[in-house]
Amino acid sequence: MASIGFIGLGIMGTPMARHLQDAGHRIITSKFIIPPRQELVDHGLELVETPKALAEALDTIILMLPDTPEVEDVLFGENGVYYGLGEGKLVIDMSSISPIDTKEFARKVRETGADYIDAPVSGGEVGAKNASLSIMAGGTPESFERALPLFKLMGKNITLVGDCGDGQVTKVANQIIVALTIEAVSEALVFASKAGADPARVREALMGGFASSRILEVHGERMIKRTFEPGFRISLHQKDLNLALQGAKSLGISLPNTAATQELFNICAANGDSGLDHSGLVRALERMANHPVA
Amino acid sequence: MASIGFIGLGIMGTPMARHLQDAGHRIITSKFIIPPRQELVDHGLELVETPKALAEALDTIILMLPDTPEVEDVLFGENGVYYGLGEGKLVIDMSSISPIDTKEFARKVRETGADYIDAPVSGGEVGAKNASLSIMAGGTPESFERALPLFKLMGKNITLVGDCGDGQVTKVANQIIVALTIEAVSEALVFASKAGADPARVREALMGGFASSRILEVHGERMIKRTFEPGFRISLHQKDLNLALQGAKSLGISLPNTAATQELFNICAANGDSGLDHSGLVRALERMANHPVA
Amino acid sequence: MASIGFIGLGIMGTPMARHLQDAGHRIITSKFIIPPRQELVDHGLELVETPKALAEALDTIILMLPDTPEVEDVLFGENGVYYGLGEGKLVIDMSSISPIDTKEFARKVRETGADYIDAPVSGGEVGAKNASLSIMAGGTPESFERALPLFKLMGKNITLVGDCGDGQVTKVANQIIVALTIEAVSEALVFASKAGADPARVREALMGGFASSRILEVHGERMIKRTFEPGFRISLHQKDLNLALQGAKSLGISLPNTAATQELFNICAANGDSGLDHSGLVRALERMANHPVA
Amino acid sequence: MASIGFIGLGIMGTPMARHLQDAGHRIITSKFIIPPRQELVDHGLELVETPKALAEALDTIILMLPDTPEVEDVLFGENGVYYGLGEGKLVIDMSSISPIDTKEFARKVRETGADYIDAPVSGGEVGAKNASLSIMAGGTPESFERALPLFKLMGKNITLVGDCGDGQVTKVANQIIVALTIEAVSEALVFASKAGADPARVREALMGGFASSRILEVHGERMIKRTFEPGFRISLHQKDLNLALQGAKSLGISLPNTAATQELFNICAANGDSGLDHSGLVRALERMANHPVA
Repeated sequence: MASIGFIGLGIMGTPMARHLQDAGHRIITSKFIIPPRQELVDHGLELVETPKALAEALDTIILMLPDTPEVEDVLFGENGVYYGLGEGKLVIDMSSISPIDTKEFARKVRETGADYIDAPVSGGEVGAKNASLSIMAGGTPESFERALPLFKLMGKNITLVGDCGDGQVTKVANQIIVALTIEAVSEALVFASKAGADPARVREALMGGFASSRILEVHGERMIKRTFEPGFRISLHQKDLNLALQGAKSLGISLPNTAATQELFNICAANGDSGLDHSGLVRALERMANHPVA
Repeated sequence: MASIGFIGLGIMGTPMARHLQDAGHRIITSKFIIPPRQELVDHGLELVETPKALAEALDTIILMLPDTPEVEDVLFGENGVYYGLGEGKLVIDMSSISPIDTKEFARKVRETGADYIDAPVSGGEVGAKNASLSIMAGGTPESFERALPLFKLMGKNITLVGDCGDGQVTKVANQIIVALTIEAVSEALVFASKAGADPARVREALMGGFASSRILEVHGERMIKRTFEPGFRISLHQKDLNLALQGAKSLGISLPNTAATQELFNICAANGDSGLDHSGLVRALERMANHPVA
Repeated sequence: MASIGFIGLGIMGTPMARHLQDAGHRIITSKFIIPPRQELVDHGLELVETPKALAEALDTIILMLPDTPEVEDVLFGENGVYYGLGEGKLVIDMSSISPIDTKEFARKVRETGADYIDAPVSGGEVGAKNASLSIMAGGTPESFERALPLFKLMGKNITLVGDCGDGQVTKVANQIIVALTIEAVSEALVFASKAGADPARVREALMGGFASSRILEVHGERMIKRTFEPGFRISLHQKDLNLALQGAKSLGISLPNTAATQELFNICAANGDSGLDHSGLVRALERMANHPVA
Repeated sequence: MASIGFIGLGIMGTPMARHLQDAGHRIITSKFIIPPRQELVDHGLELVETPKALAEALDTIILMLPDTPEVEDVLFGENGVYYGLGEGKLVIDMSSISPIDTKEFARKVRETGADYIDAPVSGGEVGAKNASLSIMAGGTPESFERALPLFKLMGKNITLVGDCGDGQVTKVANQIIVALTIEAVSEALVFASKAGADPARVREALMGGFASSRILEVHGERMIKRTFEPGFRISLHQKDLNLALQGAKSLGISLPNTAATQELFNICAANGDSGLDHSGLVRALERMANHPVA
């Protein structure tokens, strides 16, 4: 069993690190804003002063942080991971951050002789707890092979998509499709309901054909049963669509419906719904139509 | 076996009527714009002068027409079906038309003592030929029971959603979801590809999670393999989104992404792509990003 | 002074016809849905049975009708104007209708030897009463010269834009710009207000620069002073944007913000605001932001 | 005459500082990325080591920087302006940056006893050279009075909108309206032209009515005459719309047409047009409609 550095022990990171502990790995973190939960300490979590010290002491460093600036800070800020890296070490960033910045981070990390994998996940807190996360990785096949045993302790649907950055690109693509399909189902159910049909029966009728999707199944049911406790919060999905839109601006891509859907999420935020599950997007369209689906 | 009136023997109607003939039903039509195909005549298709005469002679009249005005004309125009209706007769409209007008048509038909079912289909020409259409019906349970044996000769996934109009409402909901999910997959794949990832591997990575759908599976593959022969033509999907948008205007519903997607289909039309399969919507986004997915 | 046929004596048509009467013209109409107002009768309005009879009796026929189907019906329906036309007669359509259908109507009318001008107006009821309408005409220079003395009795800013249809095209272009500029001012004022600034002072600061427009001046003030009595009703602007969007679909043009703005008007309709002045569009954005401008 | 600190001597800042020099003011800057132009040096520009030193030495510090991070860095970074501030000093930020961050910057600056005005401008390089900039200020009336003599050397249309941040809010509102009106005129002219009308005559016909605006006048003419040399670059307008959209996300405001227009600018960028004047947005819509306005 190995000793693994893990920075970012929040809602997602805690259960992920726990799975590694349960498999016998020794987890070490560095002092960082929020103190780690007791359950990690109870299972042997150790602490060093700085990310740099962590990188000097260990070969594998996993990051699970909220957004691009935090990753940049932990890697390249004062006493950052970067300054402790060298030949044979591996940084695995499982955060969901900018694909473009990821390529730059990887380039710099590789200059030290270390390697880099971006491996963002989907599946949310439930997936983290059940070790059933989807993991979308970008990196070399060699480093992927090296990380794979760890990934298998945390997730199920694990794919090496391409080189560094491609994991983050895939995560962005995932979040675009999920948001826009939730929006599509919302428009369809608001239409059906206000036109006088029973949305539950409409959803069932649609499940068999080309309109069928995981979103129609799961989130469509939430819209009808009005079960909007998260799941995956609207505020988090807004962060991810912002990655998509900022990336599109940098790369010269036009994403009209992603942009429109982001503005619909803003309606949710304006009306106190940003803590709801992202299926709560339907409430923006309900407000606009002055009609609840159910 | 029964004698059945069938008006609208085009690309969809011909194979549908043939399945009824193969099951032993006698099919009769009225003179209407386009002469019926020889294969129907070879299997015993008969002809009367007018829709009215058809309604007078038979108990069951099936319509499979291009759009609302054609249905209105066949039902209520000079010598229309309406004038031959009475107690015990049943009109089954399998066209995809306006849900709002459908309710009015049904109301008038029911005044004669006859009954009305709207039963639009999805699945396209392939589904019509394979008798695997999805059929979304609106009407009374009694009339649905009566029509069901005929439906089973033409389709597979057959649902009674509610009363008259609800079949058309469901079809519109279906077309909203299908168009917007195609658009979602297009944005995701254009983003992924221009960001440097391999779209085929991105699509595969996404198939396991919440982004998975029949559209990602079937139409996503078309976008990557560049197989845009129809399938279901963009020009037909534009007609259906127009039903959605006109309905939304009448009913007071805001459908921002349906409206945006209709304008993207207009880009396809402007650039000579309206005869492509609707997965060809990706070409509008490719043009905007100045970058092909593959 | 001449005898002039005038069909469509509603809110707009009545004051327009009154100006012609005041100038000494004899106005004759045909029986049509709504009986003409007493003030027209008091000033000598005469009546014939049918549009056809009107066209047989008179050389100049003015139409001022709600939408394309009404114009088509009056022209080409049973006993329509068309059947009474011939050499030397002139049809002047001042309704706001489809540019594409207008070209077809003009083609047919010209086959009889008569001529056709489309001359839609802007300026609303106030402009009609004050004889200050803007008139955007499409037709031959000869027919425009012939109609000009009549136009001058009803409007001020009178332009021959091109041949038949171009008047309607210009009216559609006008309505696109007006709607989208109202929307732009709405977004700006909602932003400014929710960000904590005084929208009245923001509007004033903007009036001097590139953001200045008649809309910012007039409709911007309405938004701040909350004076939403029409003016020009939202429901009428929706009709006009529908002409734009249906035209765009026919011609292969993508109008993303026109389409989006139409859906915002639907929010107004859904929430009981379709009778407000079109500056009331701001209320849709206020609802979305959960914040009134003032 | 006074001694004034000026940080940010680029395309805009250089002519602005020159006007101050011409009025007899002594201009001092700090070492910063790009060396100042020779003409400023020729007119007596002086240099100190750091922004902090500048703030210690002088009572008035003007900033004219590209974006929020640069302003933050100059104010609060190592040896920033902030560390040299105190009672009686005034920071005037004429950059166009985030209104929300501006409020925070002002709060911190005021803690030192100094005061803060945000005073972003519109009018571009031409306005800077001609001293005809519009200046939208946010701050106390006292500080505005103090800055006004300087503003009058650089601009014409000078308004105190409210307290700190309100200048930036007004600038964002301005950029929303300008972008969306350019987009509106683009949709209208593409529609008119593809529908067969002469766009120049359509524009003229519209200039008299409610569709009239500075944008229709100036940018509409550019679209017709195809004169797209800047003016104000698309890439800069994208930056400003990003401020609007990020602000909207923070504040809970939905800006659907601003978001859509940003994605249209992305089409320009993708197709090599981001260096054009912002009226070049019409080229995105032309591409979509496969038809040039002229």
